[in-house]
Amino acid sequence: MSPATHDNSAPSNPAPPIIGIVGGVGPFAGLDLQRKVLEETMAARDQDHLPVITISWPRAIPDRTEYLLGQITENPADAIVAQLRLLAGMGAAVAGIPCNTAHAPAIFNVIRARVAAFQRPLRLLHMIDETVAHLADHHPTRRTIGILSTTGAWQVRLYPAALEPLGYHTVAPDETMQVATIHRAIYDPGYGIKAAGGVTARARAGLEQGAAYVCQRGAEAIILGCTEMPLAFTEPEFDGRPLIDPTRVLARALIRAVAPHQLKA
Amino acid sequence: MSPATHDNSAPSNPAPPIIGIVGGVGPFAGLDLQRKVLEETMAARDQDHLPVITISWPRAIPDRTEYLLGQITENPADAIVAQLRLLAGMGAAVAGIPCNTAHAPAIFNVIRARVAAFQRPLRLLHMIDETVAHLADHHPTRRTIGILSTTGAWQVRLYPAALEPLGYHTVAPDETMQVATIHRAIYDPGYGIKAAGGVTARARAGLEQGAAYVCQRGAEAIILGCTEMPLAFTEPEFDGRPLIDPTRVLARALIRAVAPHQLKA
Repeated sequence: MSPATHDNSAPSNPAPPIIGIVGGVGPFAGLDLQRKVLEETMAARDQDHLPVITISWPRAIPDRTEYLLGQITENPADAIVAQLRLLAGMGAAVAGIPCNTAHAPAIFNVIRARVAAFQRPLRLLHMIDETVAHLADHHPTRRTIGILSTTGAWQVRLYPAALEPLGYHTVAPDETMQVATIHRAIYDPGYGIKAAGGVTARARAGLEQGAAYVCQRGAEAIILGCTEMPLAFTEPEFDGRPLIDPTRVLARALIRAVAPHQLKA
Repeated sequence: MSPATHDNSAPSNPAPPIIGIVGGVGPFAGLDLQRKVLEETMAARDQDHLPVITISWPRAIPDRTEYLLGQITENPADAIVAQLRLLAGMGAAVAGIPCNTAHAPAIFNVIRARVAAFQRPLRLLHMIDETVAHLADHHPTRRTIGILSTTGAWQVRLYPAALEPLGYHTVAPDETMQVATIHRAIYDPGYGIKAAGGVTARARAGLEQGAAYVCQRGAEAIILGCTEMPLAFTEPEFDGRPLIDPTRVLARALIRAVAPHQLKA
């Protein structure tokens, strides 16, 4: 029971290594990532599932979009780093952050630099890089990519900046649709997914409007670039175009990192 | 970044206190408890949700029923205590274990005694006691209670032993239905909820047979006494009898313990 024996207790000697998840960004997105890790793992009984530690501490993490838009000055990176440090301290070997917007360079570069200085090494996956790699691997012929995201990610061109140097053409909502329709589907205090704690009909309708908008402009695949969006789109396609779910891509990357033999085909 | 500063990082000074969850028993039941904590919390944005740390480490925890039936000798209490110690070390003030069977005295009494000796105090809730209290508070006129559970909980009469001293009459499946139908709906390697990682039609049918069985024998309410069962019964009633969901009861008890003002009515 003493602190001295603490590190000898079962959880400290894992096989395979522990997956760490920074939940709470948002809370339901954190659940969605955990569920997809379970769904993508080959398992025949409880004991076959991989060790996962999730910290869901939304209060500690300022809104990523508010920071990117200059509405608040506190960088969410600080709280995310603190939670990653706690996960590393608990023995996590690899970690993921189920929030696309938190991967904007102004936030993620700070996180990455500070995680690199941890005493306990932690491999931090990059959700956007994993999604770009997934697109090339699984949809090599799709070169015009529609992108739906928060206004924070939209403003810093998070996905376009990752895709265009690779020769992709990207299409996103114009500012009016982004601000009035897409962003509110996530953030509206009345019907937004974050406030409602679930997908309301109006939120779904707004996101479908956005999907239709990028399809009309030539999108051959659509990235659901905010982790609340896959909660609204449960089908693999929209209007015949594949929907790319970065949460599922991240879930698979986390499994691949610790137990590739248990990753479902 | 040093260990010295570790405990000063954001997560170590919570308001409200942190909820700890021993996930992985089973993994989908752990997700279900996390979801119900979110659903039962009054929140208008990500940041309003409560801090929750979940350790899902199923591999470390031997099957509770196999232990109670004498099929294995390692008490799951040891691994559960190790995970509770880790949660306490991360700052959890209250914790819950979303597995009814783990509350059998042969397991839970060991856990409770060792948790009481932790250097960092941790309030461990008792899912069965909370469920019995919920029954009295919300269904005071229902005195004959149907109970569905794993064969481990069935054999040690987990819920009957808690209810009968209070004057309740309990009805449960006979041994044939328990072993051939109810238990397999949870554990069958082919169609059981644990193996399938979801509720198969055959698992649901088996559990509905059990619910019908206890209703025919006078059950006025039915306790879904295994945390995989609420995954199969999504309606609040079965054949006009209220279905008591210990996972939701535990979720509400965890919220009440740390932030009663945020508990939904």
